[in-house]
Amino acid sequence: MRVSRTGVRVRYPETDRMGVAYHGSFLVWFELGRTELLREAGRSYREMEEEGWMLPVVEAQARYLGPALYDDELVVETVLEEMGRAQLSFGYRITRPADGRTLATGRTRHAVLDARRRPARLPDAVRALLEGAPRPGEG
Amino acid sequence: MRVSRTGVRVRYPETDRMGVAYHGSFLVWFELGRTELLREAGRSYREMEEEGWMLPVVEAQARYLGPALYDDELVVETVLEEMGRAQLSFGYRITRPADGRTLATGRTRHAVLDARRRPARLPDAVRALLEGAPRPGEG
Amino acid sequence: MRVSRTGVRVRYPETDRMGVAYHGSFLVWFELGRTELLREAGRSYREMEEEGWMLPVVEAQARYLGPALYDDELVVETVLEEMGRAQLSFGYRITRPADGRTLATGRTRHAVLDARRRPARLPDAVRALLEGAPRPGEG
Amino acid sequence: MRVSRTGVRVRYPETDRMGVAYHGSFLVWFELGRTELLREAGRSYREMEEEGWMLPVVEAQARYLGPALYDDELVVETVLEEMGRAQLSFGYRITRPADGRTLATGRTRHAVLDARRRPARLPDAVRALLEGAPRPGEG
Repeated sequence: MRVSRTGVRVRYPETDRMGVAYHGSFLVWFELGRTELLREAGRSYREMEEEGWMLPVVEAQARYLGPALYDDELVVETVLEEMGRAQLSFGYRITRPADGRTLATGRTRHAVLDARRRPARLPDAVRALLEGAPRPGEG
Repeated sequence: MRVSRTGVRVRYPETDRMGVAYHGSFLVWFELGRTELLREAGRSYREMEEEGWMLPVVEAQARYLGPALYDDELVVETVLEEMGRAQLSFGYRITRPADGRTLATGRTRHAVLDARRRPARLPDAVRALLEGAPRPGEG
Repeated sequence: MRVSRTGVRVRYPETDRMGVAYHGSFLVWFELGRTELLREAGRSYREMEEEGWMLPVVEAQARYLGPALYDDELVVETVLEEMGRAQLSFGYRITRPADGRTLATGRTRHAVLDARRRPARLPDAVRALLEGAPRPGEG
Repeated sequence: MRVSRTGVRVRYPETDRMGVAYHGSFLVWFELGRTELLREAGRSYREMEEEGWMLPVVEAQARYLGPALYDDELVVETVLEEMGRAQLSFGYRITRPADGRTLATGRTRHAVLDARRRPARLPDAVRALLEGAPRPGEG
């Protein structure tokens, strides 16, 4: 496992009157990507939150290269880009296998908060799991 | 005060590729309507939640009579339809003043839950405030 | 094929600060259900729109029986309830297989519009396909 | 007019189970900001689209500095950062006047497309209007 790949199909309400997927929808798909990366690494984000950890987004960016259409089947490729003491970064690429186009790339940076919502170190158990998670350039 | 009136402008992501507002967007506007009704009655819904009460939707219905377009200025008219021991119902009408059309009508029914998320009686203070709130047929 | 069944996992942005899925999210899942019913019947809704037909929602209702939580795996069961000359109705039930609970039921009614957005009869080809589609009580 | 200021109140469905506004909601608020900037400059984005021009987002970024809560009253400050031959960039700052905190900053870059969805030069009339629009450092 180097790059996590998650399928997603464009939903009707994710489109706007321009006839294509709204640019904000891609942030939601990025989220699906990192959720599945964590699940594949062995710990679901839901479990992490139930144990008192949160990974709020502190920075997000996206570059849009082509339109995604209603009902398109897309793939979200996600990698763990950086893992610091109290921060994580994920990188994303969204492609449409039907024509091989890359529709967007992006990146999110996350803080680590504990149950009192204070900055915290990433738990060692999570860190260990993520050491084995997808990294850039190894896909 | 009989009918609560709230203005709302259609946002770009609230539209879909049919070129009009997505039908689910109207539920969000209904919510804005009852939020403002409660605020006008003297108690914001945020305050109610902070005091431990929740009013989850247990039933929702909407009838769509005409399309709402991007950037349209709409008005949400909201009335308190029923107030039972442990339930509330609100009625809604969404109009577009520019042409006087009614675009949708609807209704939501709400349970009352306490801080432990158990069914509860509506607090007397809230009940008293709502006694003075908008009712159908008095608008 | 009698009842169309579609899996859906609750996404983070579909939840709200009550800690459960927002009630409007269920309308989106209903839509996924009827989209898959149409696809199973042999005609995707995207194809229908490309051929100039639209099925806008003219009425929607939902009854909420229990909360859906983040990351829950749900199933949307969809049936074709009625097929008139120029209208269709679908019925929905959303369940959580993990505990067998039904979380919501609902119904949407749809007009049939042609490429000029005027009320139209449902195309015979679509009608024929839907004759074989899921009906209530046959699931 | 140097900086365009638009008020927005956090809606219930814009929050998530973390109890704060979902990070994607800020992109929607950025959009409200640039929509109002264009309106103040003398041309609504709806009019621009009706005349055949589109300004799709080709790049978006946001930095999150603090949580926005349900029902918070926020202000979106928007400036025109760059205006090239066939591109525009807007910068954003979202503040909460109640405590003076800046909750997020961001930037979007937009292509200019004509009615056939091909890259185009920004119409001179729009360019002239925007020459008078808010710029960074002049607020």
